[in-house]
Amino acid sequence: MNLLLLSNSSSDAGYLTHALPWVQEWAGQHDASGDALFIPFAGVTRTWDEYETLVANALAPLLTVRSVHRMDAPVTAVRKARHILVGGGNTFALLGEMRRTGLLAAIRERVQSGEASYMGWSAGSNVACPTICTTNDMPIIDPQGFDALGFVPFQINAHYTDAHPAGHRGETREQRLREYTLKQPGMRVIGLPEGTGLQVQGTQYRLLGDAGARHFLGSEAPRWLPAGPLAMA
Amino acid sequence: MNLLLLSNSSSDAGYLTHALPWVQEWAGQHDASGDALFIPFAGVTRTWDEYETLVANALAPLLTVRSVHRMDAPVTAVRKARHILVGGGNTFALLGEMRRTGLLAAIRERVQSGEASYMGWSAGSNVACPTICTTNDMPIIDPQGFDALGFVPFQINAHYTDAHPAGHRGETREQRLREYTLKQPGMRVIGLPEGTGLQVQGTQYRLLGDAGARHFLGSEAPRWLPAGPLAMA
Repeated sequence: MNLLLLSNSSSDAGYLTHALPWVQEWAGQHDASGDALFIPFAGVTRTWDEYETLVANALAPLLTVRSVHRMDAPVTAVRKARHILVGGGNTFALLGEMRRTGLLAAIRERVQSGEASYMGWSAGSNVACPTICTTNDMPIIDPQGFDALGFVPFQINAHYTDAHPAGHRGETREQRLREYTLKQPGMRVIGLPEGTGLQVQGTQYRLLGDAGARHFLGSEAPRWLPAGPLAMA
Repeated sequence: MNLLLLSNSSSDAGYLTHALPWVQEWAGQHDASGDALFIPFAGVTRTWDEYETLVANALAPLLTVRSVHRMDAPVTAVRKARHILVGGGNTFALLGEMRRTGLLAAIRERVQSGEASYMGWSAGSNVACPTICTTNDMPIIDPQGFDALGFVPFQINAHYTDAHPAGHRGETREQRLREYTLKQPGMRVIGLPEGTGLQVQGTQYRLLGDAGARHFLGSEAPRWLPAGPLAMA
């Protein structure tokens, strides 16, 4: 498999701008036409048309992007795609629509076979995991099951941060993830701070960006993983 | 129905301390023994025994608290209870366990009949709503359906805040709730800031605390509701 899983899309530099060198390396793994199929289902407050335009413009130097929502045969489009892009937004909306349309199974098969590369950011990285149990998003719809694509053998927490608004009595992110690791003691969680990502090429994992990532497992104390090659036993 | 739905449990004054006058008025609606049945299932990082002790000590001036997890016949205990307390923690863990044990249906019936009063805080307020779709919590388990107790005809967002850590690229609370109201345009959301609560006595609603509450509906601009009587058409 060839995966690029980003924490986030936007920075002061612009939409996906910080990720363009990584996208270039990811897209270059397939010597294909440069066409990419975009899955916009996580978009709720922007329309899918608007979302397609945003992503197409951002990646225009590297790829020709078309959104699956305008196609007559979405599953067939997935089965022909060489590059699949899954955008951020609401993870529950994304997973529910992927399941409803049959794209969940089609994308899983196409990417696991190695015939398509997969790039996701935020919600698109969450659904690459075994489940969506470590999303930060609000559960605005029931996705009819929390199981997702399962491309990596651990959970990702996107937009990872320790910051907490002053005076706020809700749980910190670390407390939320600790609830998860207590319920699922055998499953690792990789917290990806803003501006970071994970590159997966076959069995090789690499943390992209400068900040490293936060590692959670069972009742172990959380710890920072350095940027660069990542050993995932 | 007689409900007391709080945004949060703890303040600088201590656990549930800020709410004691409200709890006193709530408990006084039933001229009963002063026994209260506690539902600890939202607790994940603290044990249910620890959670029972915490709540029993906090409410000792007003009520004698026993947790349902130590009882041989939990459903029967609900059917005899006059005061039911549902504590905060993780909303998904709470709802899943309430459903699995049959307490969800038993509590719904007992409270809707008026035979028991219901008090919840944080996750305990979320499950009093039609669904848990406006919880802030991490979906650490699949609760096998998002439908909840439905004691109020709107959704509550507990720990409501507009604050946002500097440099964070994730969604604000208002953006998250806007995603919900776009998907469910007919359902109101009441955002309860820290230190606030909602009192429901029959058809009378009252916002407790000084901060008021934030109102969301469809594509309407969010607005503040003042503390005091609340008209819910």
